[in-house]
Amino acid sequence: MNIAIYGYGNLGRGVESAAGQNPDARLYGVFTRRDPKTVKTATGAPVFSAADIKSHKSDIDVLVICGGSATDLPQMTPALAKDFCVVDSFDTHADIPRHFAAVDEAAKAGGNLALISAGWDPGLFSLNRLYANAILPDGRDYTFWGKGVSQGHSDAIRRIPGVLDARQYTVPVPEALAAVRSGAMPELSTRQKHRRECFVVAAPGADKAEIERAIKTMPNYFSDYDTTVTFISAEEMKRDHSALPHGGFVIRTGKTGAGGEHTHTVEYSLKLDSNPEFTASALIAFARAVLKMRERGRTGCITVFDIAPGDMSPLSPEEQRAHML
Amino acid sequence: MNIAIYGYGNLGRGVESAAGQNPDARLYGVFTRRDPKTVKTATGAPVFSAADIKSHKSDIDVLVICGGSATDLPQMTPALAKDFCVVDSFDTHADIPRHFAAVDEAAKAGGNLALISAGWDPGLFSLNRLYANAILPDGRDYTFWGKGVSQGHSDAIRRIPGVLDARQYTVPVPEALAAVRSGAMPELSTRQKHRRECFVVAAPGADKAEIERAIKTMPNYFSDYDTTVTFISAEEMKRDHSALPHGGFVIRTGKTGAGGEHTHTVEYSLKLDSNPEFTASALIAFARAVLKMRERGRTGCITVFDIAPGDMSPLSPEEQRAHML
Repeated sequence: MNIAIYGYGNLGRGVESAAGQNPDARLYGVFTRRDPKTVKTATGAPVFSAADIKSHKSDIDVLVICGGSATDLPQMTPALAKDFCVVDSFDTHADIPRHFAAVDEAAKAGGNLALISAGWDPGLFSLNRLYANAILPDGRDYTFWGKGVSQGHSDAIRRIPGVLDARQYTVPVPEALAAVRSGAMPELSTRQKHRRECFVVAAPGADKAEIERAIKTMPNYFSDYDTTVTFISAEEMKRDHSALPHGGFVIRTGKTGAGGEHTHTVEYSLKLDSNPEFTASALIAFARAVLKMRERGRTGCITVFDIAPGDMSPLSPEEQRAHML
Repeated sequence: MNIAIYGYGNLGRGVESAAGQNPDARLYGVFTRRDPKTVKTATGAPVFSAADIKSHKSDIDVLVICGGSATDLPQMTPALAKDFCVVDSFDTHADIPRHFAAVDEAAKAGGNLALISAGWDPGLFSLNRLYANAILPDGRDYTFWGKGVSQGHSDAIRRIPGVLDARQYTVPVPEALAAVRSGAMPELSTRQKHRRECFVVAAPGADKAEIERAIKTMPNYFSDYDTTVTFISAEEMKRDHSALPHGGFVIRTGKTGAGGEHTHTVEYSLKLDSNPEFTASALIAFARAVLKMRERGRTGCITVFDIAPGDMSPLSPEEQRAHML
């Protein structure tokens, strides 16, 4: 399959790297809205102007759109689905129905297949929520994120006056995880589930007490959490906080038996050294499924719920049954 | 959907109970090879003779076959797939290709859809192996079982002279689990991965030392494991070892990045108070998917790899996207 990348940031670089790990994938190139001459790819993959993408239509099987959910993807995915089979990782959960409708209309008009909201959450976490709910109807879901870097929260801290750089880690509270795993189906507040660890580089002479107060009282982002703020040097930030780890836990506990006397715990967890590289690896596997489904005639918009898992594997159905079942 | 059960043992009773938890499922009845008058169902569901099942063809949407993999299912599933959409939990991994071929031929001849090897292993564990392999091609798989009761190993102990009753628990070795989760991709021997705990009721005057020796040296079953044997009374067996708990872990660790510098751990685990009730709950969700796929025209034999997860949910695609993604 010929894969192309639209947008060359952290996620785009991850897709470039992941394509090289899959013998059935060939990276056709990277499309950028910047001047292509200013973009150097890690593997030497060719760089094209996003403005010219339609002229490459016949060379690309699946286009992986690596843009942001806030403003990029709501525009990009419907526009590109008119001409390409596409995969995106749109992750604004509340806006998924609207995004789905827009992409579905565009993809159907173009006779293409478009997968939205792929990755790990939404994506693999969603799949595990759905499987566990289908199997244990009398139960309760819990999702924990981290330990991992939240870009949105890091950015929010950087906007505070006197802050030069910041990194925020979301951390699941171990006691909450243990309570959930016990099958007790606890009611957990926002504060009980996660805490927030912030590392901040302050400008020389900045009022650190005021920065800490501004962080801890920030509505939506921090005020509902137990938050720690640690001031570090720019050198420490670079040395200790350059990676983008993430992960989390999807847990459902449920009851079975005539009197609900048996408790079951289904748990899925990810521990990722690099959030963008793992997300990109998932997007490649989902792109494989998109191509197989399109070859069978499917068009329009789909989500991970519509994909038979076997279509994500490079193995034949016979090999899957013999070695994976 | 009208569900019927073929075979009324632990698993059949689990399906009966699980059907009652799913508002879209109606339990049509239980088919037994015994005299129906001798079988009393837990919910009062009607009991029919297995010999008469063809006369109920128009009343049953999906037949859940609850037989053993050694001798029952290789005969039953192909025979019944000629007349019914069926689900089985065939779990002899090495024989799956042969079973698939026989069931596929029968189901296609009858215009039915048949799902084999559903449950948790094979089943949910297989799905997680496949997803993780598709996403992390450069990695390694580990499956651990337990802590849980192995019926096959318990039966093997019961065949030793002087043994009145026995219960065997398979237990994952914590150090092995920790080594795998670290991402070190260790090479683990059979002995390093699991140990076996045996509880035995000996006949009065039996040679306990000889029973213990016979267990610990039994080829295939115990000789490759660290095995403990504890003699208990029949009362203790009944009081402490009547439940059928099980579970396990599917873990894949893999590398990404240009130099494989990032490690990722994907882990799926189950902790089940009742193995048959959880397996049965999974079979009901898979049966729902079989019915939806048959209604779209699919026939022949399939496995869990062929099922789009959304088909297992009682929610509409719109509800799934709005609430589960």
